Amino acid sequence: MNQLFYAVPAASVLALLFAFIFYRQMKKEDEGTPTMKQIAGYVREGAMAYLRQQYKIVIIVFAILAAIFAVLAYVFHVQNPWVPFAFLTGGFFSGLAGFIGMRTATYASGRTANAARRSLNAGLKIAFRSGAVMGLTVVGLGLLDIALWFIILNAFVSEASMAQKLVVITTTMLTFGMGASTQALFARVGGGIYTKAADVGADIVGKVESDLPEDDPRNPATIADNVGDNVGDVAGMGADLYESYCGSILSTMALGASAFYALGPDMQMKAILAPMLIAAAGVLLSVISIFTVRTKEGADMGKLLKSMSFGTNMAAVLSGIATFGILALVFGTQSADWWHFGCSVIAGLLAGVVIGKATEYYTSHSYKPTQKLAESSQTGSATVIISGVGLGMLSTAIPVLAIACAIILSYLFAIGFDVQNMLSAANLSKGLYGVAIAAVGMLSTLGITLATDAYGPIADNAGGNAQMSELDPEVRKRTDVLDALGNTTAATGKGFAIGSAALTALALLASYIEEIKIALARTGELVNGIAGQVEASAASILDILNNYGVSLMNPAVLCGIFIGSMMAFLFCGLTMNAVGRAAAKMVVEVRRQFAEIKGILTGEATPDYRRCVEISTKAAQHEMLLPSLLAIAAPIAVGLIFGVAGVLGLLIGGLGAGFVLAVFMSNSGGAWDNAKKYVEEGHFGGKNSDCHHATVVGDTVGDPFKDTSGPSLNILIKLMSMVSIVMAGLTASFHLL
Amino acid sequence: MNQLFYAVPAASVLALLFAFIFYRQMKKEDEGTPTMKQIAGYVREGAMAYLRQQYKIVIIVFAILAAIFAVLAYVFHVQNPWVPFAFLTGGFFSGLAGFIGMRTATYASGRTANAARRSLNAGLKIAFRSGAVMGLTVVGLGLLDIALWFIILNAFVSEASMAQKLVVITTTMLTFGMGASTQALFARVGGGIYTKAADVGADIVGKVESDLPEDDPRNPATIADNVGDNVGDVAGMGADLYESYCGSILSTMALGASAFYALGPDMQMKAILAPMLIAAAGVLLSVISIFTVRTKEGADMGKLLKSMSFGTNMAAVLSGIATFGILALVFGTQSADWWHFGCSVIAGLLAGVVIGKATEYYTSHSYKPTQKLAESSQTGSATVIISGVGLGMLSTAIPVLAIACAIILSYLFAIGFDVQNMLSAANLSKGLYGVAIAAVGMLSTLGITLATDAYGPIADNAGGNAQMSELDPEVRKRTDVLDALGNTTAATGKGFAIGSAALTALALLASYIEEIKIALARTGELVNGIAGQVEASAASILDILNNYGVSLMNPAVLCGIFIGSMMAFLFCGLTMNAVGRAAAKMVVEVRRQFAEIKGILTGEATPDYRRCVEISTKAAQHEMLLPSLLAIAAPIAVGLIFGVAGVLGLLIGGLGAGFVLAVFMSNSGGAWDNAKKYVEEGHFGGKNSDCHHATVVGDTVGDPFKDTSGPSLNILIKLMSMVSIVMAGLTASFHLL
Repeated sequence: MNQLFYAVPAASVLALLFAFIFYRQMKKEDEGTPTMKQIAGYVREGAMAYLRQQYKIVIIVFAILAAIFAVLAYVFHVQNPWVPFAFLTGGFFSGLAGFIGMRTATYASGRTANAARRSLNAGLKIAFRSGAVMGLTVVGLGLLDIALWFIILNAFVSEASMAQKLVVITTTMLTFGMGASTQALFARVGGGIYTKAADVGADIVGKVESDLPEDDPRNPATIADNVGDNVGDVAGMGADLYESYCGSILSTMALGASAFYALGPDMQMKAILAPMLIAAAGVLLSVISIFTVRTKEGADMGKLLKSMSFGTNMAAVLSGIATFGILALVFGTQSADWWHFGCSVIAGLLAGVVIGKATEYYTSHSYKPTQKLAESSQTGSATVIISGVGLGMLSTAIPVLAIACAIILSYLFAIGFDVQNMLSAANLSKGLYGVAIAAVGMLSTLGITLATDAYGPIADNAGGNAQMSELDPEVRKRTDVLDALGNTTAATGKGFAIGSAALTALALLASYIEEIKIALARTGELVNGIAGQVEASAASILDILNNYGVSLMNPAVLCGIFIGSMMAFLFCGLTMNAVGRAAAKMVVEVRRQFAEIKGILTGEATPDYRRCVEISTKAAQHEMLLPSLLAIAAPIAVGLIFGVAGVLGLLIGGLGAGFVLAVFMSNSGGAWDNAKKYVEEGHFGGKNSDCHHATVVGDTVGDPFKDTSGPSLNILIKLMSMVSIVMAGLTASFHLL
Repeated sequence: MNQLFYAVPAASVLALLFAFIFYRQMKKEDEGTPTMKQIAGYVREGAMAYLRQQYKIVIIVFAILAAIFAVLAYVFHVQNPWVPFAFLTGGFFSGLAGFIGMRTATYASGRTANAARRSLNAGLKIAFRSGAVMGLTVVGLGLLDIALWFIILNAFVSEASMAQKLVVITTTMLTFGMGASTQALFARVGGGIYTKAADVGADIVGKVESDLPEDDPRNPATIADNVGDNVGDVAGMGADLYESYCGSILSTMALGASAFYALGPDMQMKAILAPMLIAAAGVLLSVISIFTVRTKEGADMGKLLKSMSFGTNMAAVLSGIATFGILALVFGTQSADWWHFGCSVIAGLLAGVVIGKATEYYTSHSYKPTQKLAESSQTGSATVIISGVGLGMLSTAIPVLAIACAIILSYLFAIGFDVQNMLSAANLSKGLYGVAIAAVGMLSTLGITLATDAYGPIADNAGGNAQMSELDPEVRKRTDVLDALGNTTAATGKGFAIGSAALTALALLASYIEEIKIALARTGELVNGIAGQVEASAASILDILNNYGVSLMNPAVLCGIFIGSMMAFLFCGLTMNAVGRAAAKMVVEVRRQFAEIKGILTGEATPDYRRCVEISTKAAQHEMLLPSLLAIAAPIAVGLIFGVAGVLGLLIGGLGAGFVLAVFMSNSGGAWDNAKKYVEEGHFGGKNSDCHHATVVGDTVGDPFKDTSGPSLNILIKLMSMVSIVMAGLTASFHLL
């Protein structure tokens, strides 16, 4: 094996080491007053109880799916025999990352609040470094899993030729992405339902009906709300990006192995190493950049944001530069490949930046759109909703154009702008490899970008802790500044998560075709174009498409596209309704407590927090099953009926509509949230005015938009691709049409 | 020419004749008391003023576009020379149909109210027959335009062979659809913005702020609201379906000419005649069925609905039977074609029925979903919005599956279930012809289905007139029954309009490829697969797709799909915001009148209705331009950059996402409307309870969902196809990639 490879496990160990160091540092901090400890304890306990409950269900689902894969592999021989194991490790590592991240977050928030009593900088440092634990754990475990499987398969897979072997190894590894996807789906959907059921319930009874402020300890749902931030925004987001991170690297490896098949194993190995090494360099640069995030006392929101942006921007710029170096090292500088692919990576990086900026523009109340949205509250809550929906829909334009540019440019760069032969078999593979590596570039600095993301809920919970522990108003002011910063990073983080999901899904789409090729070779069936040839790997992407009649006018493809578009909406509808139902239960419970437990509102009696936590937990567990199973079942069903052509239609339809829908929902939700904050800052009558009440309705509607349905779509589009990849063997050997 | 052809102009004349008879009958009725006349006069005047204003702008747009087409045709020779003229007649006839339909509606509503003083049946008869004027005018003018152009082109086009000539004639005729589309877009978007600006504005100030009932004469926006029903729901809906009707017939003709090219002109002519004759038979059956719609005095809503359903169902069943007869007559019974295509038509008809029923299930308060939605009002307006969005998204599943079934079944029937060779060049053309003719089947009875649609706003306006003229409560009760019936038929009508738009757009997609073929032949460029062949018509659809590298993994196609999906959202966002802005202006004006004109609320002073009408008119004119021009510009821009592959991606992405988004928005809006009505009937506290206020917010949000953005999407997806078809010459000869 190429010596350079060992940089990958080394980077993984480095990431985990720093995660451990940051964790220990945080744990050493003082958790504050007894009340603070008690509140942090409630939240931690609720969060852990939820995660245990969720993992119980997930283990059952994993056991069933692994058994099915085993039967398909060992009884019917339509499945890669390594899949059941790869599937399980993917799920295990993803779950582990979520567990570590959330455990850290629940320890960190009380300590952040306590440190904020000392100074703003102390609070920022603890919150951010604890967020970095999540970021580094995700990339560390991701690279570890990838490196381990590469070593194992390299040792055990035996094929006629080395070139063939590399193809088999990389396509097998892809399937552990399905484990990560499945875990991520449950984490995102379950966590999303949990957090918004609690939040919406708490808001409706607390803010709208009883005029309690956010995080008031008299509100029985307030602990559940804080738990929700951890299970939804930390564990859910972490699992989501773990999946994108691994998915982008794995699909690039698989495409690399097949794109350069004709050039032999040497070139293939280079193309396989490149994405891993870019990711490894990103880990190193992330760790360095994390240390640059600090601020002075008395810093305002702007300075804090600058300090954090400096860290992520530095990581991105350095990573861009490092990419060219790595590619020159791997591919050599004799051919132009190194800078061609380097430019593809830059296209991905730039698209990420543009999407992040556009998200900020449309959702931050420093800009016109959200200010106008706040203004529409003057004519009531109905116009707030209408304008917010309008805003979110308009906001889809820039991200879509950015992704379209990233796709076409990374493709064209990869083939050296050979527009004349843009679609030749060789250029098609190479170009799609370029698109895939652009996604890797976008995600290479995930260590630090995820840190800024996971920082948000920690700061939010710190604020909640400060409020509930009735700390000094000065402290509460500091945590408010930290929290506000978290809202901005969360919005850009969401844009980033969606953008990377789109590129990753596209790479997975191309990988699906590679997987079909392998499945054909395994079953002995041959591809039309290369009849008589034993090594199916020599077939091009176009051969496979033609073999299955995958053309845009094939009715199976058209049906697939319709069904895929519908899946995105259906999935959102199910999760929206789940939040609606669960929130209604929460409202009923809170109203009951106010009525039955005398003295809650005067602060004389403690509300029954546990009951509310239980309601959220149960509702989330109960409601996450149907949408999740649907996402798994749809590609299988479409494959059995419409075959490969239908599956490709499904994936493309789901990707197109799902991406746009996700951007719409996230941005509408973010804008409603900030329009409310804008009014609370004193515009249009300020807090408790009619305008404020109208924007609270908008914010409440936006909660499931931006934190449940919208982000779950990221996973839906990736998971459907992953399921299709894993089921490629079945689809290739059996389909109705 | 085949003798059977003359049935087409005959049917057209028959339709126009009966439209004229119904119009005269209606005009003979008494318009009632002086107050009733005055109010009807206000509405008519406002509606006509709006239409004049709209046509002024539309004429300018048409003049510019026609000039561009002329330059492309006569200077650059990348355009069919007939296009400028075909474009203008399509626009003219569509505008004429809208004008006649709206003029009839504005005369009919006062007379319906007056007849309702006599009896329910008298009211129903006038309203329904006046609706039938619209239905019959649309199909009459549509068939007339088709027949005229067929005769003209048949006389003037000269080509080497008859087979080639038929291809040229039918693809040329397609382009008059672009005129109808453009007209329809302005009518739908402008009308939609008009009606909802007035409605939302009237509701917010009237119902929410001042507790006035619907259609209260003290509300200054009430006349504008009634005008809006006419310009949006009559003229807009009529233009929309005129376009679907012509589009489906024309694209089937074009596909027929090319599908059977190899079999010679005789078979081609049969395939061209079939859709025209099915439509002609549908006209006859519609007229007969219209006469069966009547009811007895004392009939309740259920009986009325039954009577109307009997009419439409009878027309549908008879049309299904007649279709087999016509196809046997045209194609002969030696081959199996007649019953194969007949089954395709049945698949389309059944999909229409299923979509209608599903729409009814999800939006009528006789069923669970809307009742549950009403129940969610117990926890406030935020949960009403969340649940309504969830409901609408879930409701997309059945219509999408119905359309997918219709596509695959009509395709498979057409090729006689030859699954083995499903995608051979011959079967592909034949199968797509089957899909196209299914759309014709769905729309063949448009004469009566559009009558039930146009009936709705007439009954609504009659109710408004009765309320404002302070007629006997008994009369108001009767008009309420008529109005409630209109709401149900409107919801199913919308489902029907969307379903037919999807199938028509699909047929247009296939026609686009035919048009590209013709463009290639015109420019002398040859298709790869058939190099050396002068007659490009022999190229199959697959040849063309391959020639342009249109595969699912072509990055241009992928970019096109992303941009297409985004276009649907962007377009909705623009129209939603337009309604939001216009409604806000209306609210400000109504508040101003309440404050400045003393005595409005006590009924002592008359509000300044004219000012509100002006605001809606201006806002609609101003706001409709940007979304409309965007819809025209997008396919041209994508074509210039990404070429044919990009355009196909754009159309398919727009179709998939647009269809699902349209169903979602229409059904959410319909369910919110009826949830409010359900509460008003006395559930959950009844009128003026907290629950009622919460559902009013839902209804207000739903207004632009169901009457502006949702239905405009039908046109967007068809117009983008039409623009692409007309611009095929330019795209084929110039593109960047």
